[in-house]
Amino acid sequence: MKELLDYFKANEARYLKELTEFIAIPSISADPARRHDISKTATFVEKQLKGAGLKNVKQYPTKGNPVVYGEWLGAKGAPTVLVYGHYDVQPVDPVEKWKTPPFEMTIKNGKMFARGTADDKGQVFILFKVIEAYLKNTKQLPVNVKVIVEGEEEVGSTNLATFVKKNQRLLSCDTILIADTNMLGKDTPSITYGLRGLTYLEVAVTSLSGDQHSGTYGGGVANPIQVLAEMLVQCKDPKTSKIKIPGFYDDVVQLTRKDRAELAKIPHDDMHYARAIGATKTFGEKGYTTIERTGARPTFELNGIWGGHTGEGVKTVLPASAHAKVSMRLVANQQPDKIAKLFIDYFKSIAPDTVKVDVKLYDNNGHAALTPLDSPAMRAAASAIKKVYKKDPYYTREGGSIPVVADFQQLLGVDAILLGFGLPDDNLHAPNEKFDVSQFRAGLATTMYFFEEFAKTK
Amino acid sequence: MKELLDYFKANEARYLKELTEFIAIPSISADPARRHDISKTATFVEKQLKGAGLKNVKQYPTKGNPVVYGEWLGAKGAPTVLVYGHYDVQPVDPVEKWKTPPFEMTIKNGKMFARGTADDKGQVFILFKVIEAYLKNTKQLPVNVKVIVEGEEEVGSTNLATFVKKNQRLLSCDTILIADTNMLGKDTPSITYGLRGLTYLEVAVTSLSGDQHSGTYGGGVANPIQVLAEMLVQCKDPKTSKIKIPGFYDDVVQLTRKDRAELAKIPHDDMHYARAIGATKTFGEKGYTTIERTGARPTFELNGIWGGHTGEGVKTVLPASAHAKVSMRLVANQQPDKIAKLFIDYFKSIAPDTVKVDVKLYDNNGHAALTPLDSPAMRAAASAIKKVYKKDPYYTREGGSIPVVADFQQLLGVDAILLGFGLPDDNLHAPNEKFDVSQFRAGLATTMYFFEEFAKTK
Repeated sequence: MKELLDYFKANEARYLKELTEFIAIPSISADPARRHDISKTATFVEKQLKGAGLKNVKQYPTKGNPVVYGEWLGAKGAPTVLVYGHYDVQPVDPVEKWKTPPFEMTIKNGKMFARGTADDKGQVFILFKVIEAYLKNTKQLPVNVKVIVEGEEEVGSTNLATFVKKNQRLLSCDTILIADTNMLGKDTPSITYGLRGLTYLEVAVTSLSGDQHSGTYGGGVANPIQVLAEMLVQCKDPKTSKIKIPGFYDDVVQLTRKDRAELAKIPHDDMHYARAIGATKTFGEKGYTTIERTGARPTFELNGIWGGHTGEGVKTVLPASAHAKVSMRLVANQQPDKIAKLFIDYFKSIAPDTVKVDVKLYDNNGHAALTPLDSPAMRAAASAIKKVYKKDPYYTREGGSIPVVADFQQLLGVDAILLGFGLPDDNLHAPNEKFDVSQFRAGLATTMYFFEEFAKTK
Repeated sequence: MKELLDYFKANEARYLKELTEFIAIPSISADPARRHDISKTATFVEKQLKGAGLKNVKQYPTKGNPVVYGEWLGAKGAPTVLVYGHYDVQPVDPVEKWKTPPFEMTIKNGKMFARGTADDKGQVFILFKVIEAYLKNTKQLPVNVKVIVEGEEEVGSTNLATFVKKNQRLLSCDTILIADTNMLGKDTPSITYGLRGLTYLEVAVTSLSGDQHSGTYGGGVANPIQVLAEMLVQCKDPKTSKIKIPGFYDDVVQLTRKDRAELAKIPHDDMHYARAIGATKTFGEKGYTTIERTGARPTFELNGIWGGHTGEGVKTVLPASAHAKVSMRLVANQQPDKIAKLFIDYFKSIAPDTVKVDVKLYDNNGHAALTPLDSPAMRAAASAIKKVYKKDPYYTREGGSIPVVADFQQLLGVDAILLGFGLPDDNLHAPNEKFDVSQFRAGLATTMYFFEEFAKTK
């Protein structure tokens, strides 16, 4: 492996030059005016994959932006790793907050500043270079590799599930390596082994056919805001934060002793955590720590509420209806559709006979993802981290959702490893995005070791 | 009295001609472009009062529109009636919904259609003509009369309380006759003997210094919408609708047996009432009828609520704060300021330590008004109605607020009589406002008899 590590070092200047070109194309998927740049970036990725020595490199058109694919299947008998990343980036607004031009790579104090350095061009580029290093130096990889790089991650990966569904055979593999996440810190390397799912709904509680005067009718008929508040309070216990929807917890994979022990190791201070977001204290489900509550336990959250007079001043209206946006973060093995149905049934069942309830289910549902801590890929990733960082990784669970991970797991039937080298202060989706050069280097070495270690598992 | 009744009949054509002129001036107080018309209307009223034979007729300037005053104090030893009405009108939007021009009197099927016919030009005009009839025919009135006609009722009577405060001596009287209300129906004459007061507040519940991602922080800190809902539910019992603010009911003048008996006589059908506004059923404070709930009992109503994502689609935000507009309708002898303070203290006391609570009190407060059913003026009004309508009046309590009534009562220390001849289908504040000619006629006769009957009480 020394050969490759030396190669990484010897070629770093070239890497950064190529990455600078990759970064320079403003492939903002949310901006229709950037379609040409999207196309240019897909072509850049195609060239990188070819240059790395992959075979059957090809752009697969979708209804949106193309998916770029490449493979190397020369490791007879060895396992296959499907590698995922994306070449599109977030918009750069507010552009005036950037200290350096967003699409011009600026390296300062060991940090690469530009849109896409961490999310995700810089990270996916690590994979290109690890593959290249193997194939240039040893003419082979320890594992079979399939790479897909999509161009719509920042707009919801709209067409990726269809692509995966259509190409299940092409994409068949033993594990999926997602190169699009963070670590806890430079000195606290970590692997994300769980993501929460999501179901998102909108409710409307209506008591009248139109707004009325609260002087004339106030006290004589139900107030829909009051009823909505009463119903929402019946969904979650105010004291324990236990969700009161019958059956809600039925499919939850409970935290094991091992899970709790791993999560407890993560450096965390409740007071610091609360103060950082202006909260007086943490608050959540009884019996769980903040890290468990935000990563490993499901939630019931109100994302919005509205009804009646919401403008300036006084209007003595008795509104006809009141509305709320309700979302539930899910953990394995909760099924979004099933949970949505449980909520709808319960919410309608608790409605008093003074109101009509309408519920709209949004299709932004996502499944939770959970990779067993003792799975072969997870063990390979841990060994790789230990070799590079000289310490065991922390195991984290992300509170947010990356629906594509669950889609991959479900469609391809294998575990996903979220081995990313971003850091919490990378300013993803914000001005002055950056990626640490030291993490880029560590990423090259760790990914190389991951391939080595994973090869041993079959 | 026959003499006057004959005079009313003989002069009706002239009355309607004059009222048509009164109506034709678009005295919309909410429209700054109508200042000249306001002034023209005040001058019209001044001429009417002079023409009726009143003395010391004068426009009193205020910070807003002038108050027109006139008096006749020739009834030595007789009681004094202060008569109140207003010469300004509501806007006419949406003007395209009017079937006839809003400022052109159109008489059709015994109804006068135009803005201001019922609210309040047509009603205050009745008073002008009753006074005129007395002074033209008998050279005297049975009571002393003071008339004030203001020009800002439709914009909150902003400057009237100051005018009354400044001129308490000028306005001293034995009762106040408010000519600006409705009856239950043509065949169900009624007198309003109570109005509710109001206190209106805005609350904000804040748990974070800024919006956060509900994936990352959901479950780890308090959700302000959830907390707001929990706090609002603690303000009113969901089952009994009893308001749970300690001390809230302390000063409430309880309904007497006589009150309840009178209110129970009012023709009312719960199912019809609910269906008319699209409600499945009536709902309110346990132990009271709908008429009592909406007129004679205080309420706690949510007039608005907002927080987080209230637009289209999905946004997985954990909002920093949530807000509500809260109003309480009050009954005698609840003091708006005291009730507001009770609410604020209670609302802050029930806040969990995860949130900060801010409360803003609007100064649109109004006192409730209640005139004893057995007061001399009330008995005089009842006798007058019986003479004209050939039946006893119903006694009603309005759920809304006319703050000026309580201002009058408090500043002048006498009871107010709300003897109005509008009908519930008059389309006040809406297109196609009308006033029934038969109610105009009945108004002339009833007001005349009221003066006669009230003269007997001193």
